[in-house]
Amino acid sequence: MATKEEKIIHKKITKRSEDYSQWYLDVIDAAELAEYGPVKGCMVIRPYGYAIWERIQNILDQRFKETGVQNAYFPLFIPERFLEREKDHVQGFAPEVAVVTHAGGKKLAEPLVIRPTSETVMYEVFARWIHSYRDLPLLINQWVNVVRWEMRPRLFLRTIEFLWQEGHTVHATEKEADERARLMLKIYKDFAENIMAIPVIDGIKPELEKFAGAQHTYTIEAMMQDGKSLQFATSHNLGQNFSKVFNIKFFDKDSKEHYGWQTSWGLSTRTIGGLIMTHGDDNGLVLPPKIAPIEVILTTIETGQRDASLKQKAEEISNILTTKNIRSQVDSRDLRPGEKFYEWEKKGIPIRIEVGAKEVKEEVFTIARRDSGEKIKIPFDQLANEIEKTLESIQNNLFQKALAMRQSRTKIVDQWDDFVKAIDEGNFVLAHWCEDEKVAEEIKAETGATIRCLPFESVEERGRCIKSNKPSQRRYLFARAY
Amino acid sequence: MATKEEKIIHKKITKRSEDYSQWYLDVIDAAELAEYGPVKGCMVIRPYGYAIWERIQNILDQRFKETGVQNAYFPLFIPERFLEREKDHVQGFAPEVAVVTHAGGKKLAEPLVIRPTSETVMYEVFARWIHSYRDLPLLINQWVNVVRWEMRPRLFLRTIEFLWQEGHTVHATEKEADERARLMLKIYKDFAENIMAIPVIDGIKPELEKFAGAQHTYTIEAMMQDGKSLQFATSHNLGQNFSKVFNIKFFDKDSKEHYGWQTSWGLSTRTIGGLIMTHGDDNGLVLPPKIAPIEVILTTIETGQRDASLKQKAEEISNILTTKNIRSQVDSRDLRPGEKFYEWEKKGIPIRIEVGAKEVKEEVFTIARRDSGEKIKIPFDQLANEIEKTLESIQNNLFQKALAMRQSRTKIVDQWDDFVKAIDEGNFVLAHWCEDEKVAEEIKAETGATIRCLPFESVEERGRCIKSNKPSQRRYLFARAY
Repeated sequence: MATKEEKIIHKKITKRSEDYSQWYLDVIDAAELAEYGPVKGCMVIRPYGYAIWERIQNILDQRFKETGVQNAYFPLFIPERFLEREKDHVQGFAPEVAVVTHAGGKKLAEPLVIRPTSETVMYEVFARWIHSYRDLPLLINQWVNVVRWEMRPRLFLRTIEFLWQEGHTVHATEKEADERARLMLKIYKDFAENIMAIPVIDGIKPELEKFAGAQHTYTIEAMMQDGKSLQFATSHNLGQNFSKVFNIKFFDKDSKEHYGWQTSWGLSTRTIGGLIMTHGDDNGLVLPPKIAPIEVILTTIETGQRDASLKQKAEEISNILTTKNIRSQVDSRDLRPGEKFYEWEKKGIPIRIEVGAKEVKEEVFTIARRDSGEKIKIPFDQLANEIEKTLESIQNNLFQKALAMRQSRTKIVDQWDDFVKAIDEGNFVLAHWCEDEKVAEEIKAETGATIRCLPFESVEERGRCIKSNKPSQRRYLFARAY
Repeated sequence: MATKEEKIIHKKITKRSEDYSQWYLDVIDAAELAEYGPVKGCMVIRPYGYAIWERIQNILDQRFKETGVQNAYFPLFIPERFLEREKDHVQGFAPEVAVVTHAGGKKLAEPLVIRPTSETVMYEVFARWIHSYRDLPLLINQWVNVVRWEMRPRLFLRTIEFLWQEGHTVHATEKEADERARLMLKIYKDFAENIMAIPVIDGIKPELEKFAGAQHTYTIEAMMQDGKSLQFATSHNLGQNFSKVFNIKFFDKDSKEHYGWQTSWGLSTRTIGGLIMTHGDDNGLVLPPKIAPIEVILTTIETGQRDASLKQKAEEISNILTTKNIRSQVDSRDLRPGEKFYEWEKKGIPIRIEVGAKEVKEEVFTIARRDSGEKIKIPFDQLANEIEKTLESIQNNLFQKALAMRQSRTKIVDQWDDFVKAIDEGNFVLAHWCEDEKVAEEIKAETGATIRCLPFESVEERGRCIKSNKPSQRRYLFARAY
């Protein structure tokens, strides 16, 4: 009989160069991150995948709260007529909603939509809460599940149900709302780059790509190893589009009634897909230490007779690491060393330390880096300091590697032929665009590339649209995208 | 124009003695804990109510993890046929499920049920994960929303959608599963009594009251101030009922295949209802310090001219409390002192400290206790220690007060007339029962009382059923219940 461990060990991960899509699914399976549930397109997030989501939640939640945001919970069910109140919003979401028509054994008088996002259900309530300028700003966030009916599901990237946080704020002035929308994007960018080691380009979405109901959508875009872009998170300046239809008004210091200025911003479990596709290699997942549920795995080397002193030493090291706030785990299972190494390698643990009879006797341990495969021998008394330094080095290395890849694959292009070629070869392309939506649609139809954003760092520059040849002032970021 | 603060200040809380049900709703409103959403029976958990839920989550989550439990996430949608596979389970839940029939603009081939609980969707997946004894025990928990169509909604206690955690475990032996079910009940009991200061009676549910699909249901029951019982949390020994229909099998060390032994256990946002009804008084919410999002509120006394030194002093005290891990907040809003006091009183903050010009000058501060209304003057340098002691004293006092109430209202009864009277007067009643379900139903029909449990501490005792007069060995706990 084949046990589960043995079966996993013998399952091969497809090479990225052979089939990138299959590699992605193989890594998710090998690292035990997630799998499909019984309903097509629904995802089960397995404990190890969920532990990554918990790290994301803990870190972001604290950062949100530091800016005055409070968590709350709003209902899963939205009356169908609510969704219809903001015209762009309903157009954007109506095609992909799931609808409850029966409950408690009866047909419902009004069908209920399962939230694809919560603007409408929240803002109906916000209107009851807000009366005066003293109630502003209102800064609310929730960590919840949402449902959008996806025809082509893909684990973490597109599933019928996913987990996210959605922040929703109301302000007294347009300026303050825009500052908040940009602040949240900045928090997302810092989180992506300094915690997940994923370099991102921040910018503003063109009209045709913005959130259904927003005035402006700010985005951060990351390059995956196949050159495609992943929208990592977005933050919307909603203007007064929703406050006018949901009647969110306040008496200001001028004793007059005004509509509130709003923002919403979200980040989802899709970022875990981005994490896999930014750092993973042909041996499986590779995790930056700051997001890793386990930073250091201590594996005992069991050869024949079990030796209790190995586990004891491993736990001693683990306890020392805990005092330095380093997350470690001891693996003293009675398995062949190779099996253990392989398992933790697939799971992307940044550092592996082998604890065998020889190491315990000589008081010298080997640190193996997941990112580079490099091994270094360290005396016991220098172990904690050396691990701390190595974790920092891994974190930096992963970010620099991803940044170097993106830089080498970002092309500034002025000719249509070069554009087509650069997109085909899997690059980010900075090119002029005349801001005509029809032209953007032609470009998409011919090359598969969409306009990811107008990068914040783009400078005014006279040029001509890559496709229409009409005058243009700015280079936009084009790429194929997830 | 009336601002929001002013409006709240002038809203009166109904006295408990006048109308207990209205008092409950008034407290929820006055403390800004929750309100109904746009769909009937759906609840919006407001930031202050959600902060209490976050404390519940943080404390319990850590305790679960200490026993080896891992978090995961399973889909919201369950194929209708799954629910039907365990016959008791479907009978229990079918009448109250919500059903998605349309999605993505089309009618679904198979209707999807929104999880009322996740046994079926999880166990289908567990069967794929478990192969060998080495995969056991499997200890999984999730913090999620669930939906049960309630005809008589009541905030926190019965809402169409609520938040909870549901733990699900699989074990190699019946004994181990039962130990796990009892361990989780013990964790719930400790949490109820030592964190929420709610005394509970632990015991086993009779057949007719157990979870749909369980072999045994263990429960903890708390007495509310109106004498009714609230089921605080339950833990189920599922036996092999589900493993047999979902085919959860494992090869044991004997190289033979066996069905797993399972448990499930849950605690929900309804415990917040229990918190309100255990400790609240005619002035609003009263929170035990250990569950309070804010343990100490420091209010500046603004009289006429704003004085920056008050806020500064309040923040200094707050910082000192933070070093002692005491959660405090400074309220330096420009409002009349009475308005501030009243607001924090309604929110049940355990300790209020006034920071006025006099206090700052004399370096002596007044600690006001929410539970007793008592005020004591403390010199600045003794403040932190005194607050720490006072918080412990409040925590103990609230538990002892609730325990004394329950003890004074628990009656041992042997005559039917006394039983009816005791139930009518809002007591817990310990009485003999012949274990005939029909008799239990008669008792319920005539008095409204249900069998809450056979308490673990009940001893064998010869007696006669309170209703049928047939022989009985044990006293059961009867009460009206939420």
